Amino acid sequence: MTLQEIPTPALVLDRSVLRRNITRMSERMRNFGVNLRPHLKTAKSVDVAKLATEGHSGAITVSTLHEAEHFARNGFNDITYAVGIAPDKLPLVSRIQALGAHVHVITDNVGVAQAIVHAASAERPYSVFIDVDTGYGRSGVLPESSELLGIGETLHATQHVTLKGMLTHAGHSYDAPDVTAITRIADDERNGAVRAAERLRAHGVDCNDVSVGSTPTMRFVERLDGVTEARPGNFVFYDLSMHGRGVCDIDDIAVSVMTEVVVNLPDRGRVLVDAGALALSQDRSADTGGMPGCGFGLVCGLDGQPHAPVVVKKTSQEQGWLGTRDDRPLETGAFPIGSRWRILPNHSCMTAAAYDRYHVVDGGNEIVAVWPRVNGWTAFD
Amino acid sequence: MTLQEIPTPALVLDRSVLRRNITRMSERMRNFGVNLRPHLKTAKSVDVAKLATEGHSGAITVSTLHEAEHFARNGFNDITYAVGIAPDKLPLVSRIQALGAHVHVITDNVGVAQAIVHAASAERPYSVFIDVDTGYGRSGVLPESSELLGIGETLHATQHVTLKGMLTHAGHSYDAPDVTAITRIADDERNGAVRAAERLRAHGVDCNDVSVGSTPTMRFVERLDGVTEARPGNFVFYDLSMHGRGVCDIDDIAVSVMTEVVVNLPDRGRVLVDAGALALSQDRSADTGGMPGCGFGLVCGLDGQPHAPVVVKKTSQEQGWLGTRDDRPLETGAFPIGSRWRILPNHSCMTAAAYDRYHVVDGGNEIVAVWPRVNGWTAFD
Repeated sequence: MTLQEIPTPALVLDRSVLRRNITRMSERMRNFGVNLRPHLKTAKSVDVAKLATEGHSGAITVSTLHEAEHFARNGFNDITYAVGIAPDKLPLVSRIQALGAHVHVITDNVGVAQAIVHAASAERPYSVFIDVDTGYGRSGVLPESSELLGIGETLHATQHVTLKGMLTHAGHSYDAPDVTAITRIADDERNGAVRAAERLRAHGVDCNDVSVGSTPTMRFVERLDGVTEARPGNFVFYDLSMHGRGVCDIDDIAVSVMTEVVVNLPDRGRVLVDAGALALSQDRSADTGGMPGCGFGLVCGLDGQPHAPVVVKKTSQEQGWLGTRDDRPLETGAFPIGSRWRILPNHSCMTAAAYDRYHVVDGGNEIVAVWPRVNGWTAFD
Repeated sequence: MTLQEIPTPALVLDRSVLRRNITRMSERMRNFGVNLRPHLKTAKSVDVAKLATEGHSGAITVSTLHEAEHFARNGFNDITYAVGIAPDKLPLVSRIQALGAHVHVITDNVGVAQAIVHAASAERPYSVFIDVDTGYGRSGVLPESSELLGIGETLHATQHVTLKGMLTHAGHSYDAPDVTAITRIADDERNGAVRAAERLRAHGVDCNDVSVGSTPTMRFVERLDGVTEARPGNFVFYDLSMHGRGVCDIDDIAVSVMTEVVVNLPDRGRVLVDAGALALSQDRSADTGGMPGCGFGLVCGLDGQPHAPVVVKKTSQEQGWLGTRDDRPLETGAFPIGSRWRILPNHSCMTAAAYDRYHVVDGGNEIVAVWPRVNGWTAFD
């Protein structure tokens, strides 16, 4: 099968680009002496996870317990679930650990830490990162807070609970306007997490790991002293949003949506493709971040090169309106019904989530593999 | 199991509300003497389809060929695929018909009509609606156009192709500000489709069916003379966007996202739930359509009643930030970690697409059924 033959819409992954992205980040982290614990929320794929952990410990990060179960069943045994744990999810964590994996949970709350200690037993041990806020303003205790010490004391020296370390995510780096701003955020991310660990240690609480990371900060960070592991995720695929902020080149974007033209009305300047709000997602983050006018994605030829300056201007559930970035009339003659185009997504994490598989190419048009994804939230289905 | 026990996030469907919505629309169409051919792009569920076709012919509408295959395998044998057909999809249409279903395709293009005639044979017959634009400005020939007659002539009196009729969708009714505007659009929708059919008949081309419909127009349309069938879809569930435009009451919204609080930081006024950009979708159509400040969804108690005026202000992939509609400080004490909330979606078609199943309740808290959904695009997997 080739890209000309697969049913549309479909999610295409270029393995040659994927490998290059992974090699670059992997070597970067190794040069810092930092373990890469990739966040699989973007790829949700065992095949990608294997490539992304090569040369590192094999540890991974996930965004759902369904992912945790799936990766545990596929040979990954060191998994961080990086969303604040609510105590009613602990039995599910134990079921996943019973598959043979260590699952680390995160919390920023003394009450939750107490609930974890209360729930733990020889049969149901837990491992916990303390979630630290180093500027993103989502979750996390502040590095100078008393809550940090309170959680550390609660988890410290209990028999069946391991205080794994400090964890932070500088998610605000995705909104940084340029590389200078990203580098400053990366410094804050490191400094805050290391400072939190030092405070705990000074308080007499063991704390081995210092876990940081987002794709923008890990792409540009200049020092990681005191950090033990990094958790970027988006870097495997990148996207227009990352390009607009100077984090990657267009050529680094590894995923695209294969689509075909289904409507062409020359007298009204209208061309529709069979990729709409579901196939592309409704994410507009490139439009508001360095690539104005980019709409719902950038239209490329089968070779993956932008058919400048054509974009998806508007979507309905299953159809996308093509138009130009600068609102000049579209040359409809270039888009006959049945012609095929690859659309680069604004935000690969969002776009990929609509698909249950990748159609994998290796620089060319031939489908060399089909890789499944693990979507949704239902573990132990 | 109850709503207190199901893993979160989960998609909850209240069957009692669903039934009421369906009964209302079904009776409304029956009173007009019009067959209800519900659009299953919203529900993507055989269980919902059975309820929504009760008392009508059993005909349905779908948005993907994957849906067409799924419904064909589950006893539905009269299916309209309501996205412009590209000729390379015709073999897939034939495979679905080989399962025992009639699949009607749509086109607005003479070249595609010729390709359909060329591809048709005794073993591979096709049935076609002509797509008519009655004001939406997406696809479709104009009712007064020469293309309408050209397509009609092409499809007319060929041995293995049936010209099923005229089809239009007044999708712009979703952006109408109020009921008066919707009623006017409903008139245009009917008038344009009936006019197109009359022109074809006057031209000597048989044309039995006149198919119209969107949820807003079918909710308020005042006459449907000359129309044979209607294709609303969203009405089974409704959503905040429909409420904001006066199409339904809050109590008519049949789906919600079950979520729990995972972060609560009182000193920073911050509460996060485990439903984010994937679990809720990034749709903002209520925010811009009659419900300003509604963000990514309206927070309700377990009873489905709004916990006024709390909304999801912001999302990351798996987490949602709670806040108030009018930006007053949030009472964080009301949202302890582990507390559960039902979030009403902006746009049920988009939100439901992230889930592979419905957790069905019947007015209460008990899960009375689990109904699967058919997502994605891959037919004959």
